[in-house]
Amino acid sequence: MYERSCFFYILRPVSATPDSHLAKGEKTRAAILERAVDLASAEGLEGLTIGRLAAELEMSKSGLFAHFGSKQELQLATVAAAADRFRAAVVEPALAAEAGAPRLRAMAERYLGHLDLYEGGCFWAATSVEYDDRPGPVRDAIAATIDAWIGELARQARLAGVADPDRFAFELSALTMGANTRFRLSGDRRIFEYARASLRRLEAELDSSTPGC
Amino acid sequence: MYERSCFFYILRPVSATPDSHLAKGEKTRAAILERAVDLASAEGLEGLTIGRLAAELEMSKSGLFAHFGSKQELQLATVAAAADRFRAAVVEPALAAEAGAPRLRAMAERYLGHLDLYEGGCFWAATSVEYDDRPGPVRDAIAATIDAWIGELARQARLAGVADPDRFAFELSALTMGANTRFRLSGDRRIFEYARASLRRLEAELDSSTPGC
Repeated sequence: MYERSCFFYILRPVSATPDSHLAKGEKTRAAILERAVDLASAEGLEGLTIGRLAAELEMSKSGLFAHFGSKQELQLATVAAAADRFRAAVVEPALAAEAGAPRLRAMAERYLGHLDLYEGGCFWAATSVEYDDRPGPVRDAIAATIDAWIGELARQARLAGVADPDRFAFELSALTMGANTRFRLSGDRRIFEYARASLRRLEAELDSSTPGC
Repeated sequence: MYERSCFFYILRPVSATPDSHLAKGEKTRAAILERAVDLASAEGLEGLTIGRLAAELEMSKSGLFAHFGSKQELQLATVAAAADRFRAAVVEPALAAEAGAPRLRAMAERYLGHLDLYEGGCFWAATSVEYDDRPGPVRDAIAATIDAWIGELARQARLAGVADPDRFAFELSALTMGANTRFRLSGDRRIFEYARASLRRLEAELDSSTPGC
């Protein structure tokens, strides 16, 4: 079930256009979406209306409408921007590590590290829970992105020779996302120590595995 | 940090009043809140207005106002009703198991089992993410209830002789809540097998522990 969406969103190739070559309109759009991702991580994506975002950015609603014709278009663009951010902060830096066990360690550490970079915490933890009972294109885009992330964790676990890579990927994902959720509600930074200790226990499985295909 | 709220909400003693002795008004209130917990588990607690709930129950708004004078009062009563439900479905049945390792196993299994009992899945997974950035009495009530649950897991882990009971409680909680969240978004029931396999790995720590104080 994971493979089909592996290259969707967070794993797609990066744009080759350097920032300085972006047209002014594209830069404005990117800046709007940066703020939209932060707002959605904190308050949810359902409350992200064009009016709410316009007030936050001190822009006119008509100015925002020029970029996004509808609330749903804005929501989908926000999901794509969050995926770009996640790819840049978590996925791409981990590619420097060798495939298999080293990359799994890098992906887990990068995920935990990126939680401190942005206000609102993990966009995916916030929106996946918000949309699980709201069928439609926004839910589909969120689900496909998370499928791609967990599918990539499972693929790396398979390369590392883990016997049950889908279970391993579930567990790594539950521990890292769980650290976000528990920290956001309790404010207790010891949660990150607990998560790292739990991840070390999980990663001990990698040392006893035979690298696979 | 956990102990202070251990007896708040989910761990408080059950009412001694049998259902048949409840006044008619109390029965109506309980029925309203049952539906409110289901709705909030699926759609969130912020969208749970008196108008939305009245439409769902085919009651008049003024009828609902007789029970709950404000949206916040309704939300707080819903959190308390969700805690009652959680206590009856998860906490109390686990009390039949001996304190320590057997009770931890029973609490984890009961948590996973109760996810199928109600539409909308886990109320706490849904609302904790929704309220982590919304300060106020509703957030406080949700946080106190989850603190009580995780605090009780840590207490039982300590009784079971686990060396780092707070880390153990975090991990058990992340795996069980993570199963809810991943299942709700993917619809893939294999998630429960993965969660049970991960819990067996975690519970192996219990077998090698010396029961403590």
